Amino acid sequence: MSAPDVISNVLAERYASAAMKNLWSPRGRVGLERDFWIAVMKAQRDLGVPIPADAIKDYERVKTQIDLESIAQRERVTLHDVKARIEEFSELAHRQFIHLGLTSRDLTENVEQLQIIRALELVRFKVAAALLALSRQAEAHRDVMITGRTHNVPAQPTTLGKRLAMFGQELQIAFARLDELIARYPVRGLKGAVGTQLDQLTLLGGDAGKVDQLEQRVLRHLGFKASLTAVGQVYPRSLDFDAVTALHQVAAAAASFATTIRLMAGAGLLTEGFQPGQVGSSAMPHKVNARNCERICGFATILSGYVTMTGALAGHQWNEGDVSCSVVRRVALPDAFYALDGSLETFLTVLRQMEVFPAAIAAENERNLPFLTTTTILMEAVKQGAGRETAHEAIKEHALAAAKALRSGGDADLLARLAGDKRIGLGKRALSAILAEAHRFVGSAPHQVDAFVDDVKPLAKRFKGSADYEPARLL
Amino acid sequence: MSAPDVISNVLAERYASAAMKNLWSPRGRVGLERDFWIAVMKAQRDLGVPIPADAIKDYERVKTQIDLESIAQRERVTLHDVKARIEEFSELAHRQFIHLGLTSRDLTENVEQLQIIRALELVRFKVAAALLALSRQAEAHRDVMITGRTHNVPAQPTTLGKRLAMFGQELQIAFARLDELIARYPVRGLKGAVGTQLDQLTLLGGDAGKVDQLEQRVLRHLGFKASLTAVGQVYPRSLDFDAVTALHQVAAAAASFATTIRLMAGAGLLTEGFQPGQVGSSAMPHKVNARNCERICGFATILSGYVTMTGALAGHQWNEGDVSCSVVRRVALPDAFYALDGSLETFLTVLRQMEVFPAAIAAENERNLPFLTTTTILMEAVKQGAGRETAHEAIKEHALAAAKALRSGGDADLLARLAGDKRIGLGKRALSAILAEAHRFVGSAPHQVDAFVDDVKPLAKRFKGSADYEPARLL
Amino acid sequence: MSAPDVISNVLAERYASAAMKNLWSPRGRVGLERDFWIAVMKAQRDLGVPIPADAIKDYERVKTQIDLESIAQRERVTLHDVKARIEEFSELAHRQFIHLGLTSRDLTENVEQLQIIRALELVRFKVAAALLALSRQAEAHRDVMITGRTHNVPAQPTTLGKRLAMFGQELQIAFARLDELIARYPVRGLKGAVGTQLDQLTLLGGDAGKVDQLEQRVLRHLGFKASLTAVGQVYPRSLDFDAVTALHQVAAAAASFATTIRLMAGAGLLTEGFQPGQVGSSAMPHKVNARNCERICGFATILSGYVTMTGALAGHQWNEGDVSCSVVRRVALPDAFYALDGSLETFLTVLRQMEVFPAAIAAENERNLPFLTTTTILMEAVKQGAGRETAHEAIKEHALAAAKALRSGGDADLLARLAGDKRIGLGKRALSAILAEAHRFVGSAPHQVDAFVDDVKPLAKRFKGSADYEPARLL
Amino acid sequence: MSAPDVISNVLAERYASAAMKNLWSPRGRVGLERDFWIAVMKAQRDLGVPIPADAIKDYERVKTQIDLESIAQRERVTLHDVKARIEEFSELAHRQFIHLGLTSRDLTENVEQLQIIRALELVRFKVAAALLALSRQAEAHRDVMITGRTHNVPAQPTTLGKRLAMFGQELQIAFARLDELIARYPVRGLKGAVGTQLDQLTLLGGDAGKVDQLEQRVLRHLGFKASLTAVGQVYPRSLDFDAVTALHQVAAAAASFATTIRLMAGAGLLTEGFQPGQVGSSAMPHKVNARNCERICGFATILSGYVTMTGALAGHQWNEGDVSCSVVRRVALPDAFYALDGSLETFLTVLRQMEVFPAAIAAENERNLPFLTTTTILMEAVKQGAGRETAHEAIKEHALAAAKALRSGGDADLLARLAGDKRIGLGKRALSAILAEAHRFVGSAPHQVDAFVDDVKPLAKRFKGSADYEPARLL
Repeated sequence: MSAPDVISNVLAERYASAAMKNLWSPRGRVGLERDFWIAVMKAQRDLGVPIPADAIKDYERVKTQIDLESIAQRERVTLHDVKARIEEFSELAHRQFIHLGLTSRDLTENVEQLQIIRALELVRFKVAAALLALSRQAEAHRDVMITGRTHNVPAQPTTLGKRLAMFGQELQIAFARLDELIARYPVRGLKGAVGTQLDQLTLLGGDAGKVDQLEQRVLRHLGFKASLTAVGQVYPRSLDFDAVTALHQVAAAAASFATTIRLMAGAGLLTEGFQPGQVGSSAMPHKVNARNCERICGFATILSGYVTMTGALAGHQWNEGDVSCSVVRRVALPDAFYALDGSLETFLTVLRQMEVFPAAIAAENERNLPFLTTTTILMEAVKQGAGRETAHEAIKEHALAAAKALRSGGDADLLARLAGDKRIGLGKRALSAILAEAHRFVGSAPHQVDAFVDDVKPLAKRFKGSADYEPARLL
Repeated sequence: MSAPDVISNVLAERYASAAMKNLWSPRGRVGLERDFWIAVMKAQRDLGVPIPADAIKDYERVKTQIDLESIAQRERVTLHDVKARIEEFSELAHRQFIHLGLTSRDLTENVEQLQIIRALELVRFKVAAALLALSRQAEAHRDVMITGRTHNVPAQPTTLGKRLAMFGQELQIAFARLDELIARYPVRGLKGAVGTQLDQLTLLGGDAGKVDQLEQRVLRHLGFKASLTAVGQVYPRSLDFDAVTALHQVAAAAASFATTIRLMAGAGLLTEGFQPGQVGSSAMPHKVNARNCERICGFATILSGYVTMTGALAGHQWNEGDVSCSVVRRVALPDAFYALDGSLETFLTVLRQMEVFPAAIAAENERNLPFLTTTTILMEAVKQGAGRETAHEAIKEHALAAAKALRSGGDADLLARLAGDKRIGLGKRALSAILAEAHRFVGSAPHQVDAFVDDVKPLAKRFKGSADYEPARLL
Repeated sequence: MSAPDVISNVLAERYASAAMKNLWSPRGRVGLERDFWIAVMKAQRDLGVPIPADAIKDYERVKTQIDLESIAQRERVTLHDVKARIEEFSELAHRQFIHLGLTSRDLTENVEQLQIIRALELVRFKVAAALLALSRQAEAHRDVMITGRTHNVPAQPTTLGKRLAMFGQELQIAFARLDELIARYPVRGLKGAVGTQLDQLTLLGGDAGKVDQLEQRVLRHLGFKASLTAVGQVYPRSLDFDAVTALHQVAAAAASFATTIRLMAGAGLLTEGFQPGQVGSSAMPHKVNARNCERICGFATILSGYVTMTGALAGHQWNEGDVSCSVVRRVALPDAFYALDGSLETFLTVLRQMEVFPAAIAAENERNLPFLTTTTILMEAVKQGAGRETAHEAIKEHALAAAKALRSGGDADLLARLAGDKRIGLGKRALSAILAEAHRFVGSAPHQVDAFVDDVKPLAKRFKGSADYEPARLL
Repeated sequence: MSAPDVISNVLAERYASAAMKNLWSPRGRVGLERDFWIAVMKAQRDLGVPIPADAIKDYERVKTQIDLESIAQRERVTLHDVKARIEEFSELAHRQFIHLGLTSRDLTENVEQLQIIRALELVRFKVAAALLALSRQAEAHRDVMITGRTHNVPAQPTTLGKRLAMFGQELQIAFARLDELIARYPVRGLKGAVGTQLDQLTLLGGDAGKVDQLEQRVLRHLGFKASLTAVGQVYPRSLDFDAVTALHQVAAAAASFATTIRLMAGAGLLTEGFQPGQVGSSAMPHKVNARNCERICGFATILSGYVTMTGALAGHQWNEGDVSCSVVRRVALPDAFYALDGSLETFLTVLRQMEVFPAAIAAENERNLPFLTTTTILMEAVKQGAGRETAHEAIKEHALAAAKALRSGGDADLLARLAGDKRIGLGKRALSAILAEAHRFVGSAPHQVDAFVDDVKPLAKRFKGSADYEPARLL
């Protein structure tokens, strides 16, 4: 009889990329912890703590021997996860020099923050990739006029490129926030059980200067620029909320895009595309479901749950700290990153595969354009000598009748109606001429696309590989 | 080189019980699906669909051959999870008779609802167990007077048993809700792609009566009493919100208990106890951390996130249904149940292991009791002939002075102060006599405990095994 | 110079009905409190507390003299809202007999619960009204075939009536939950400062039987059947969560309806209608925005925020109670009810005003029907002697080509394509005959409408006036 | 008979400051809108739109005649709030030149963003004030040793100043985020119905340069540095989420402080203080409830609800925009700012009024210090010649026994126990000498206070008046 299946993390295993999984995997984490312990030991030794050089070598030699089952075994005895990992590492090295003067949180807070910032950087890279992919699509459809909609009802023309740039704009805001967060994200550092550095001070003979140097060494090892000065046992949990809400903003921008793609797919104007070999609906071959876009929306919903979780942690620590946050952070932090990573991988896939149906778009424009241009027609009628109020009244009459015809299943045929009305004074040819100028009705849309494309361009250089990042095949 | 580790589901693997994991495991689910398909086939055959009896036997023969990796392999090709499981089962049986006239959701909605109701029943059982455990503790401490607190400040006496019954009362409300939900929880049934039963009607020759019979057979197989009549492709997502918010109410009741235990542990009045072999803090042996209670609070926070997720799904389906909920439900449903299961297991553990320090409780009472009894003293003084306003003023003066002394680090010594004041007219002996009646100050508390214990008692019979349910050893 | 404007509550003043506002208005609340105090006094007097009958009359005489400004003035001095209301009432009556042996929460908890249950009952009435209005619309469009959609893409036919019944089904679930909650909703009762009834016991000479009688009298006055036995200073806050999540389920059902109406309006299939005199978009007369349906969606989002608030209160009280919930409940409870009331008023308005465009619906069917019937065509082809695989292949080819033509802006013209293919063997006439049977493609939809209508019918009797409830004119 | 009371906004009327109320008041908003219209008219006129200078003067003359009731009257007819405000202003001026080429959202989005950024700036000012007030308290208690706690249980000494600085640190993070947000917060600008600037282009003769100039003029008027380029009818709703989550971080930092003050008040170590004239509990004069701190926690909970609301809006707009967000934003935006303003006013009040009880703190230290110093004692014992393991065992024995004694209601008396044990070899004097050095046990705490105070100091200069900002009297 075989061992029971391990229940896997759905977000990690179905949706997240290998890079994101590596950052948060238990194995990866043990590796980061061991590196951290070794860095601390080296710094402590340099600052006078009597740790033999050989001992450090012994730890280094075994640091990649990571046996998760053995660690789990130890934890089942002591019910103390950090203790289990200390014992495992020290027994492998046959030494007892790690974790000197450290409290558990000196280890775990710093390592978790390291995971967080690296994960944020990975997210930033993919957001850059998404912005670039979006800008390519916006550019490609810069001048494709579409029927702009407000309240889901035709309103004024815009271009597909502009619509895509609009989602890009939202993503840029999320990017800016991410960028700021990464730039200022501070690490807790080695602060001891209640944050006073007492044990490191004791270890280093009460020399505050040496404690500072140790802290600097640790920061340098971790790659952080800033550490927090006045913390308790833990860093303020609102910093987790800061991170997770930044992720939600990215997810929301992707969901804005996905929501409108779903609407357009429903109207037959485009498809999010298929992956090679993918089966859509076997029964109905004409059906192209926007299931990836639906999924992108789902990821944003998931993120909103982790926002609630981390939001509920913020402000709820007691005194110098407790672990009421522990189980929450074990879930919410990695899972928020997995979910966003899944969202970005899916988003990038859609951006590569989406297929636009220009003829269907044109047909929709044709149905709606006459309505959308009545303002312009009025102005032209007045120029040709019609009375403004008379012409306005006439146009309104016809627009209403045409709308009614449309709803009755007939053709709106608004142009014909207008052409036949002497109060307006514009013949079929004149009216057609106005509609032929339709490309002007998109206003600044193409220029707005250009501005977006220009804004985004530098990201390709700043983040090597982002311009041609290929998402892995989705499930 | 070995395969990369599977990232496991933390909630399932660290905290949930085996029973809950089985309900939601991929393997368990495949089993439920195959049972469902077989039940449908049998019913269809009985109703005239030409399915050979041998074919059904062929499926039955292989139904426990569940190879998750093979199924995953298939899904990676078609990107369609249900299709992958159909193919796997049918190829094992060398037959093609399952899923006739079914849409994917005919399978998945029903099976997921089956998982949900079974998980709800498991939760209900454990809530019953918790109520019984709580009632035992309440009974055991029925008359242990403690300093009742409002605003976290001593207010009036109560008993520890009553305090525990108070959390029991909250849990009873959650239990009632759970019980109601289970009683009315309706299943979607076999309704086809947009909910009109078209394909089953076609399959059964347009005979609506037969379609009804098929539906009834399916309900009976699943064990549901009620099915939904007018659904689309999916059942209304607010039903998931209904379930998850019921779970949150249970988690909140447990968290109410845990929060106050944490406060009491901080005052040294009790401990949540240790599991055999558990190491608390190696450095400080006097330290008994209420880490399990902190964890119970954490689980409630986690649930609140799943409430947000399922709350955001409710009301957001388009037309007859979409899958923007899919990834969310894959995460939120099992994880909500795992989290609550973890909470209940932890709660039950604390209820078995908690240790009360009566002497410390008595010492706290002694410090506060004089303050808490000033009302009674006033009444006695008046009875002995003191003027009400005079006595009131005198008592107030002393109480304020005593409180100030306490804050200044001294003894409050309120009784001595009062005894020395002629305006009150009660000597040391008289005052001591009042305090000796302290047991009366707990008012109806003991009777309220009795009422709670009586209320809860029938659960032991209704849910066999609940009275002596033993939670598994925690991590 | 005039006094600064009072900032009004937007939800109450713009959206809620007068009935709901009355339930939660400060003036209404003062009235409920005074009634409560008088009921307690009467009961206390009957049980032997020396309260002169004249004193009660004095209070009764002035009870409707409610001067909110005077009360506010008092509160600005003492910073104690209940004290301010006690003083005001007693000074009006020139008496000092109210609030004997009561703690503030003995008053406020009970009165707030009274507001909650009355508000829940009002909501239930309007949900009944909405179900009846929905059933009328479902019945009216019982047989109107529409293009059912999954993933927002045409899937199978259904009827408009069935689609509406589908939302009705979700609302029925919410109704059932509401009904259960109202039936079991327990009130806190008179329990004193820490829940032990100490002060009432003292007042009534230590006679527990009299305290019980007092409690019963209070319950009868309030109209509750059940009271909580083991409470602290407050009732468990998860009971608020219970209520607010029940509201959210109602809001979600309304939002499900509204979301799909918005989609249908975007496709020109119907409109949510106009109120008399309403101006839509002055510029574009053909534009009928589903702004009320958008608002219904907004209300559900608002409710989700109050779910988070009350969810965060649950499990967070310390000891016998604190007031960290106070400001939250002042906001979340009335505002949740105002928001839901706004949603229901809007929902009922749309249900009365919505206008369906059958011709536009028929035109959509015509475009999509051929695709939706390929399964049936296949079956007929086989009946007429075609090889199943050959015919399937042929149909698939044509369906794909037709879909492509559609996307290219052309006509799909699937029937013509199929009619021209000898592999299928069905001529134009035969194919038209199949499509003429289109009404069968809606499957059980009409019967499902009937079932819904029947289910809902008894509500009209159970809730007098619900069948012809007229929402007030919206803003 | 009088008009029915207006239901007031509780957050605004009970808790928010006049400054915050002014920013969001309907009257204030009408003023901002009229200024905006006039600024647009002037710019349009300068750019060649034929608007008479006199017309602008006519508008300016009446712009402060704001009659909310008249506007409300108009809205009740047209059901269009912006239209009502246009008509009112134009009829007052007897002109028709405002709102030329504008869509409603051109007005409302910009004005709402103006309210948001001004409100963010007001919040930033108060956060600066709170940081300065906190730094004064931290400095004042820089060296007051307290018993640091983790898991709510005594852990290691720290100082009260350090504990306060710890909350300051969290607030600094929130401040940094706020500062970044204000610096980059972009306004939507004049973009027209679907964001393409079509109508302004038409109005300005198709001259894109002029449209840019108009936009620049509008930005300058509003005082924004950046505008969004590629928007639809609305700015991305995740920007609201950006703002509201920044508010929540501030509220969470305040709640962290308040939570621990509540714990300390429960242990009698300090009080949040009283306002002059405030009545606490009339019955129990020794009771000083931390009700303001409880309220601060409540405000954070409220904010978490608005986080959910704005989080649910993000990613849910359809196409170029809809108004499903409208009712949500009417509630969530002002109310989030009112709630945070209430939190900050309360926080500032507590920071001014809190009173520390040093003697009670010292008494707590005395009880716990022996336990907290066992590590140091061990080191000294070894120095004096004791064997490490022997001494460790001995200390552990005594610590356990002392802890047990404490729980049994006796004195721990750990020092006496240790002094009597020859295995340790330290007499009473030696042990007392160690404890006399207790001030060292606070480690770097005082220096961490200094660092915090230094960090915060520049804010006093940067935000004039922040150092001596006086919150208004609370209710």
